[in-house]
Amino acid sequence: KELSLAPTEELFDRSKMEDLIKRRFFYDQSFAIYGGITGQFDFGPMGCALKSNMIQLWRKYFILQEQMLEVDCSILTPEPVLKASGHVERFADLMTKDIKSGECFRLDHLIKAHLEKIKSEKNTSAELKAEIEDILVKLDGMNSDEMSALMKRFDMKSPISGNELTPPIEFNLMFNTQIGPSGLVKGFLRPETAQGIFVNFKRLLEFNQGRLPFAAAQIGNSFRNEISPRSGLLRVREFTMCEIEHFCDTKDHPKFESVKNTQMLFYSADSQEQGRPAEVLTIGEAVARGTVNNETLGYFMARIHLYMIAVGIDPKKLRFRQHMGNEMAHYACDCWDAECLSSYGWVECVGCADRSAYDLTQHSKATGTRLAAEKKLPAPKQIEVVEAVANKAAIGKEFKKDAKAINDGLAAMDSTALEQLQEKLDSDGEYVLNTPNGDFKLTPKLVNVKKSQKTIHVEEIIPSVIEPSFGVGRILYCILEHNFKMREGDEQRTYFSLPATVAPMKCAVLPLSGNTEFQPFVRELSQELTSVDVSHKVDDSSGSIGRRYARTDELGVPYAITVDFDTMKEPHTVTLRERDSMGQIRLPLQDVPTIVRDLTNSKILWADAEAQYPKFEQQENVKGAAA
Amino acid sequence: KELSLAPTEELFDRSKMEDLIKRRFFYDQSFAIYGGITGQFDFGPMGCALKSNMIQLWRKYFILQEQMLEVDCSILTPEPVLKASGHVERFADLMTKDIKSGECFRLDHLIKAHLEKIKSEKNTSAELKAEIEDILVKLDGMNSDEMSALMKRFDMKSPISGNELTPPIEFNLMFNTQIGPSGLVKGFLRPETAQGIFVNFKRLLEFNQGRLPFAAAQIGNSFRNEISPRSGLLRVREFTMCEIEHFCDTKDHPKFESVKNTQMLFYSADSQEQGRPAEVLTIGEAVARGTVNNETLGYFMARIHLYMIAVGIDPKKLRFRQHMGNEMAHYACDCWDAECLSSYGWVECVGCADRSAYDLTQHSKATGTRLAAEKKLPAPKQIEVVEAVANKAAIGKEFKKDAKAINDGLAAMDSTALEQLQEKLDSDGEYVLNTPNGDFKLTPKLVNVKKSQKTIHVEEIIPSVIEPSFGVGRILYCILEHNFKMREGDEQRTYFSLPATVAPMKCAVLPLSGNTEFQPFVRELSQELTSVDVSHKVDDSSGSIGRRYARTDELGVPYAITVDFDTMKEPHTVTLRERDSMGQIRLPLQDVPTIVRDLTNSKILWADAEAQYPKFEQQENVKGAAA
Repeated sequence: KELSLAPTEELFDRSKMEDLIKRRFFYDQSFAIYGGITGQFDFGPMGCALKSNMIQLWRKYFILQEQMLEVDCSILTPEPVLKASGHVERFADLMTKDIKSGECFRLDHLIKAHLEKIKSEKNTSAELKAEIEDILVKLDGMNSDEMSALMKRFDMKSPISGNELTPPIEFNLMFNTQIGPSGLVKGFLRPETAQGIFVNFKRLLEFNQGRLPFAAAQIGNSFRNEISPRSGLLRVREFTMCEIEHFCDTKDHPKFESVKNTQMLFYSADSQEQGRPAEVLTIGEAVARGTVNNETLGYFMARIHLYMIAVGIDPKKLRFRQHMGNEMAHYACDCWDAECLSSYGWVECVGCADRSAYDLTQHSKATGTRLAAEKKLPAPKQIEVVEAVANKAAIGKEFKKDAKAINDGLAAMDSTALEQLQEKLDSDGEYVLNTPNGDFKLTPKLVNVKKSQKTIHVEEIIPSVIEPSFGVGRILYCILEHNFKMREGDEQRTYFSLPATVAPMKCAVLPLSGNTEFQPFVRELSQELTSVDVSHKVDDSSGSIGRRYARTDELGVPYAITVDFDTMKEPHTVTLRERDSMGQIRLPLQDVPTIVRDLTNSKILWADAEAQYPKFEQQENVKGAAA
Repeated sequence: KELSLAPTEELFDRSKMEDLIKRRFFYDQSFAIYGGITGQFDFGPMGCALKSNMIQLWRKYFILQEQMLEVDCSILTPEPVLKASGHVERFADLMTKDIKSGECFRLDHLIKAHLEKIKSEKNTSAELKAEIEDILVKLDGMNSDEMSALMKRFDMKSPISGNELTPPIEFNLMFNTQIGPSGLVKGFLRPETAQGIFVNFKRLLEFNQGRLPFAAAQIGNSFRNEISPRSGLLRVREFTMCEIEHFCDTKDHPKFESVKNTQMLFYSADSQEQGRPAEVLTIGEAVARGTVNNETLGYFMARIHLYMIAVGIDPKKLRFRQHMGNEMAHYACDCWDAECLSSYGWVECVGCADRSAYDLTQHSKATGTRLAAEKKLPAPKQIEVVEAVANKAAIGKEFKKDAKAINDGLAAMDSTALEQLQEKLDSDGEYVLNTPNGDFKLTPKLVNVKKSQKTIHVEEIIPSVIEPSFGVGRILYCILEHNFKMREGDEQRTYFSLPATVAPMKCAVLPLSGNTEFQPFVRELSQELTSVDVSHKVDDSSGSIGRRYARTDELGVPYAITVDFDTMKEPHTVTLRERDSMGQIRLPLQDVPTIVRDLTNSKILWADAEAQYPKFEQQENVKGAAA
């Protein structure tokens, strides 16, 4: 009897789940009929709907509820932007090549595999095993020289051919292309959506009427040319991100109070270094103790936690791990990752980084555009102002088309630079100014430095940035793992217990058989469901009702409506079945659309519906149902 | 008095609208602080919300209501896929370069500008003017030689430097890059989303349980390396598309009846050739007359029409123009464009092409994977089967790793190819088979051709494809143009009369002044609006209420709620103002969230709300309001 097949917490069988994902086309390798390319996936109807529902909920959770400014920026990014952000120089992984075949290996993966093999060998000494253990922990933070030394010490060769390997090579992970027909404008596919927000900072600040704090958000694709993508959706070459840049001048948060009792699992850098386990605290405690640096960071961490639970992440398999100093991205000064436990281990799904003023400062420097906000001072202040006084007419005459770059360069100089300018003018009678157009010699005739007293009412501040950054594909994969279930007693019968909010479809409409008399009821129901925006699928294929229930279970569809012979009698009624409990109720046809809508919007619970309508007891045809 | 400022149909002022778009950051040039790149735009909060609302409505209109299979496929596409689709060879525009400076010009634009200049000159003869007129009409369909002849005949030079120009050069519009670290796998950014659907045809057909017809849809970005992008959002280098591929074996449509009385403006190829104007017909008439080829094409055209009206396109500025033979894309056998009239002329916003079986056939050929559906025959049929019988063991022995490619190649041969195979084996004793791995000589020992009789119950068909393809940015631009209005008597006061469904925000909450006693009401209202999913903005900045109304009008926000001193009295009431009529009503605070939700969901009309609640008469502060 199906009702006895309650879900069970058995050992997770990844290949079974992958089979289901492929068979029901949640997602699969891109361009498979052409042999495919690793690290690229296409989402089929179910995966696409799940992803789009996750994004809709994200939009509601963050953009709507927090009144963020959503933007949608270009993917193709010209080189100077990513030079300023540091990506051209530093967004690279180390790789090594087989010197004969040219095959490429990601160096840390190669070292890890090599050392784990040694560790697992019988005749490896306990000392060496312990040493390897220690190396593996530190591997993530190692530089090229350290890794090179390991390659030599352990005499590493290509694991495939046994050939010699090249010394470590820095491989930049950005895809490059040329913009425009000349072939001269170099561009990259953005490796993160964040830069689009930073370069629009002035427009966004103005849209927010000059006031801090505010948050901007972006949902879109980013691209990383991974050296050797693997682990399915966890390491891919193109992926959807949801990123928030919260610009602020102080780090307390007005809504922190509303989340402060949220219990979460924290794994601080300190705990990791000391070998202590992660600990459960409320976010309020974590901020009070200083484990989490400030309220704003804490507020976002709690909101991330709540969102993850809402989309179906198992709270017991969710932790926040703080980055250790050596693994921090080049732009971050503190970072907590929301990690989900999966069969691949703990997977980073959301990063929550404090990027401080890094990016805005970099883009200000690179462009001469001040990316800063003004803040009213509590009281007016007398300050000494140092500024470059340019003889614009003379500069224009001497430098013609470069005059603008020179004037911009002078205007962008800070007080230290201005002091140097004055010193050089005094000592050498000239100063060499670097501009994007080249270097130019300036003499005291063209420029001098003026100091004066000024009363100011506002101060200019470059805001700090807190950046929660969500990897949609990784979260989606973990949701699938955390919700993959087997019916007790029938391990062929697998299903996804996805929350209704994100389930690809909210319900299935199943005529009991191919009897044509069912068709008008099915059609009417489908129209009514559409009119209340309930996504659904009519499954009028042949196959027993049990078999079709099994299919809707596989798709993670939470509710199924069955039209049967009793439906045709007045008053017209149908059966409504809930996926996880497999409980069924009988209710009037006209009640169904709103009941299903309210159930899937969490306005009512299944228990409420069960209390309201009579139970329906009928055996599902279980045998062979999962075929 | 503001109420007298009804909208007026004045001459459209594009620079005024562009100023508003920029000032309120609907969208703007990407990377502007770095000098920007032509043909790339970032959508700010208002543009992004408008775009996202348009897409949500599209998803509801097409995917949900038509139960389409939505997919989300990779953007980076390996070369063989786009070779098969014809894009590597044919997706190109002609350009010419300044032989000295190397500056590139799109050839048709250059010719057009050159000829229009001649045409406008006083001393140009009437004959030449007429001839130029004729050339301009035909220009779109001209090939390289014809354009080259025009360049010579009219002695065209670079319009900038006056230098000589190169002969026409084919410039492929796809951005290329390398996938993976070896640099050897060539890839392109997809120029359309369609190919992702075609290469997944087998998976989608299986998901649909093997049945035709079905439609798949995709929403995503595509990229075209335009030679000289211009006209703002109308010609850009990256853009969002919504594409549908409707796979079918017959072209009647079960839901055609439901749209057949839709009146639309048709501009057939015939009318264009004969110099007749476009004509208004119902889609039913158009199909009956054969103007539109079939019901399926007609059904989608009507649905496109209805969607365009729903998002705010002016029906008087919408027409369907059929492609003439010489302008059809390489894959299309018939095509109707939904065009919107704008200040740039008629703009193609949606293409509705009959791609027949072109793409599936091409990918089948290229991969050896049969992309076809099976259809049950009305009665079993005896047929002669011709097939290649491969000696797999011998092939395996002789060709080792290439054996699979050979066997696949043989299996993919159609009857004509098999006949050739037999002939060659008979006449030459060998046959050269082309495979993706190279050419291989096959002898009668390895393969022969067998003919036999077989009873079949199903036939294999490669479905036809009807493809409605929406350019989101172009539609968005036309929506803005069609809804840009000025208040009568105050042309500084401009606004967007966007339909509530797509308006970036549904309402604004405006405290009459900075009085702190208003704050709790504003906060409560904001929370209540959030809880019923009504997007809104609190504008508590200083500035008169009239000035803030003007600002929300500029953003296209349809409703504004004002909290004033009367709000604090019991029963708490607020003012609700409608953007287009500027009418105001007074209603209880607690009614507001549901009323605004129902108004913006089109459940009730403004007239209904006006009938239900008392009018509120108060002068808006008009003077200087638009500042």
